[in-house]
Amino acid sequence: MATDMTLMWFSGSPPCWRVMIALEEKNLQGYNQKLLDFLKGEHKSQEVLDINPRGQLPAFKHGNNILNESYAACLYLEEQFKSQGTRLIPMAAPEQALTYQRVFEGVPFMDKIANVIYYELKFPEGERHDSSLKRHREALTAELKLWEGYLEKLGAGSYLAGKSFTMADVVVFPCIAYVFRFGLSEKKYPWLAAYYGLLKERPSVKTSWPKNWLETPQAEGKLKDI
Amino acid sequence: MATDMTLMWFSGSPPCWRVMIALEEKNLQGYNQKLLDFLKGEHKSQEVLDINPRGQLPAFKHGNNILNESYAACLYLEEQFKSQGTRLIPMAAPEQALTYQRVFEGVPFMDKIANVIYYELKFPEGERHDSSLKRHREALTAELKLWEGYLEKLGAGSYLAGKSFTMADVVVFPCIAYVFRFGLSEKKYPWLAAYYGLLKERPSVKTSWPKNWLETPQAEGKLKDI
Repeated sequence: MATDMTLMWFSGSPPCWRVMIALEEKNLQGYNQKLLDFLKGEHKSQEVLDINPRGQLPAFKHGNNILNESYAACLYLEEQFKSQGTRLIPMAAPEQALTYQRVFEGVPFMDKIANVIYYELKFPEGERHDSSLKRHREALTAELKLWEGYLEKLGAGSYLAGKSFTMADVVVFPCIAYVFRFGLSEKKYPWLAAYYGLLKERPSVKTSWPKNWLETPQAEGKLKDI
Repeated sequence: MATDMTLMWFSGSPPCWRVMIALEEKNLQGYNQKLLDFLKGEHKSQEVLDINPRGQLPAFKHGNNILNESYAACLYLEEQFKSQGTRLIPMAAPEQALTYQRVFEGVPFMDKIANVIYYELKFPEGERHDSSLKRHREALTAELKLWEGYLEKLGAGSYLAGKSFTMADVVVFPCIAYVFRFGLSEKKYPWLAAYYGLLKERPSVKTSWPKNWLETPQAEGKLKDI
């Protein structure tokens, strides 16, 4: 039981979800957790600021070791519990290279999703332009096509870095679940849709599925025409 | 001699510089390299696109293994050549946690630098607002203060994750060099300035110092009032 670990998180936040999937994959169940409310601004509470001066979630502690960036927490957990649960960074150089490559392509992927989905949140009213939203939507479309192509090239039943589930899936799957939640067309992106269907059934993903998504499976269809 | 490695890079690009520092620290000299010209758009050439469909640099190959995201290349090199050269990810959990944490705080740090320095490049003319540039400058100021505080807390002569040089320095130092190049005040940020002075003399950093920075040590003073 991972009783020496504490995670503060938001339900449905891709960065928080990553850490929860990594914990499940490494068989680190039973950690302390505190679900906070973004709309109430609970991530700016003193309790969070004491761990994370950025006032962001996830905020994660293992004993006295603090890891607030989701990628940092995931890589730390893999390194500290290498032989426990799923091996997330393959040892063989070709698979390892592809895993790291896709893990870090997850950064611009998430950025581009946020630029469209959180457009109103990121840009105050007087600073919004049809031209900029259009550009962000085009950038996200190009990004989604890249990932669609990666999966197509790997073939049916593949994970993001090949035949095995890896850290690339831990960090990028929540992004892919997010785009479908916001209405991305399964018809237009069949490889992403098949991957989404495969991962949805994985125990680590199922167990950590955002509770509020079960209640309202679809969000506003911001990506339906992407 | 790392003759089975090829790096395509821009001079003075923090992401490219990271990979060069990592290669030096891991004693991987003698790799093939190709310096490209951003202003001539050489990163959109077929040669780059064949390795990196994003048309961005760095583009890096080790044998047939492709790593185009700078963080991916650095972590792969550490993992593949763990016992060679400098150990960049400490083994002890507390140091390892802090290293990963700072490594990934490097991502928002670089983003915030880019939002100010490349403001005109990122936002077309009709979409620029004094209010948004002001907000980006404030975000960068807050970010710089965080790093200044981290260094102050660690004390004189420290690296970003403690008493030893780590991956945190590999990926974040180029950002810090960048802000001083663009005129950041050494007086206002004495801990960052001391760190900059310390790292500047490190062989891996000195050897890989951007050639065009030697010719023109200071860029436009965009950050002088930050």
